[in-house]
Amino acid sequence: MKFTIFTLFPEMFAPLEVSMLKRGREAGLLFFDLVDFRDFSGSRHKNADDTPYGGGGGMVLKPEPLYAAVASLPPPAGSRRKVLLTPQGELFSQRRAAALAAYDELVLFCGHYEGFDERIRALADEEISVGDYVLTGGEVAALVLVDAVARLVPGVLGQSGAVCSDSHATGLLEHPHYTRPPVFAGQKVPEILLSGHHAAIARWRRKESLRRTFLRRPDLIPGALAFLGGGGRDGSAEQAFVWQEGDYALLEELAAEEEGIRLCRPLWAHLRPRERRGRRRRRRDG
Amino acid sequence: MKFTIFTLFPEMFAPLEVSMLKRGREAGLLFFDLVDFRDFSGSRHKNADDTPYGGGGGMVLKPEPLYAAVASLPPPAGSRRKVLLTPQGELFSQRRAAALAAYDELVLFCGHYEGFDERIRALADEEISVGDYVLTGGEVAALVLVDAVARLVPGVLGQSGAVCSDSHATGLLEHPHYTRPPVFAGQKVPEILLSGHHAAIARWRRKESLRRTFLRRPDLIPGALAFLGGGGRDGSAEQAFVWQEGDYALLEELAAEEEGIRLCRPLWAHLRPRERRGRRRRRRDG
Repeated sequence: MKFTIFTLFPEMFAPLEVSMLKRGREAGLLFFDLVDFRDFSGSRHKNADDTPYGGGGGMVLKPEPLYAAVASLPPPAGSRRKVLLTPQGELFSQRRAAALAAYDELVLFCGHYEGFDERIRALADEEISVGDYVLTGGEVAALVLVDAVARLVPGVLGQSGAVCSDSHATGLLEHPHYTRPPVFAGQKVPEILLSGHHAAIARWRRKESLRRTFLRRPDLIPGALAFLGGGGRDGSAEQAFVWQEGDYALLEELAAEEEGIRLCRPLWAHLRPRERRGRRRRRRDG
Repeated sequence: MKFTIFTLFPEMFAPLEVSMLKRGREAGLLFFDLVDFRDFSGSRHKNADDTPYGGGGGMVLKPEPLYAAVASLPPPAGSRRKVLLTPQGELFSQRRAAALAAYDELVLFCGHYEGFDERIRALADEEISVGDYVLTGGEVAALVLVDAVARLVPGVLGQSGAVCSDSHATGLLEHPHYTRPPVFAGQKVPEILLSGHHAAIARWRRKESLRRTFLRRPDLIPGALAFLGGGGRDGSAEQAFVWQEGDYALLEELAAEEEGIRLCRPLWAHLRPRERRGRRRRRRDG
């Protein structure tokens, strides 16, 4: 996969030379092209910004250099998507990362300074914001996007199984991890992880993922907000979460253990194992 | 303000040497201390990770090196806040950035690899996630946090006025910007910005900020979701937005111009100018 990045600060992309992204490039899976679009300004002093019409502080990115830089792009070798990083864009999410990972080339536009001329928007196929906070420019946002997308390119991470258990990849927050030593700073590793019972360990991990998500980010679970009595954000737009067999029994256990998790049974009836519902129906019939 | 960053990849922090962050450091306003906690592993091979208890792919960050690195911190010269970057943390926001900018020192812990030993959490005062997506490590997330917080430190940005009109800083998305030329790629600068009428320009900018926020991110405006007939996320937790005098008249205009903005008047009655409500009351009395 190719990333073409238009920026005034190519030196901010040193993280592309490190760790996973470096290995992906060395393996011939990732290609990065950093383009300083100041070179396309056409002016002697390579000005890329100018004062805003209508007054006000700060400088505004001029349209000409980026238009010229885009015109200089070689024909796409496959599918190409042009993305403008801006706080006004769609909120970036794991689902969006997966959609972008399907392209052969991403062209990223990084704004800087106060803002950019409105006509620059017309260059992009879509606009993305990495979060509801103000950054100095699109460079750091582009680093976020490249990291999240590149690791979904097949082969870039060594073990593909590792991708699936990450927080947000399953729609749940991840279960706790432990490594040696078994006791550290007065804190013990849960005994079940030392037991060697793989099925019991898998069940414990699923339960702890559910516990953590219900307590910290209930908005990630469809229906969980109603379940918890409302409040908070409804993350319906981004739900990657799928219920699994056995989750209802785990919910019953969690409700008994955590004050913050109340089991309003009618709302969760669809998760109950079938034989149980069958028994209930027979009782009513008799 | 001081940022102490514990990481296994100090070379990923090259962006700290560029642009605003560089100027802030040169001005003596920002201090960065990058600590490779691999140096605190105590083992000959400087191992910082180990296999997970209970099996599964990937490696887990060991607790010892980070505990030793924290123990080596000099006594704080002022208020210090220790932050763990993790997808399981509280969602980062402009409000959180402002709260963190009030500390004299932030200590940031960047995880990497598959995950980190659960006991590492006990080291941090809080946990922050920059968004609902999977990153390879906390380094890029730390860059986001440093950028968003550092620019709020007084003096780091030249013109303090510029901070206030940024998207999210006011609770609204920013209005469009334009610079020369007046016509480019067939797209004209709005005439009002060339008029020199400052009050009219300020009104136009407020109106375009409202238009853009209502159309793209209605969840940022309290009550806007109900106004638009529900749906989408309720951003109540992060609302920085405050209604201004004159907004109701702008809303009336926007409702006439945009299909996506419907004016359900009873919900917005509190924004109506007083004299208008007075007139209505008199009419009803008569």
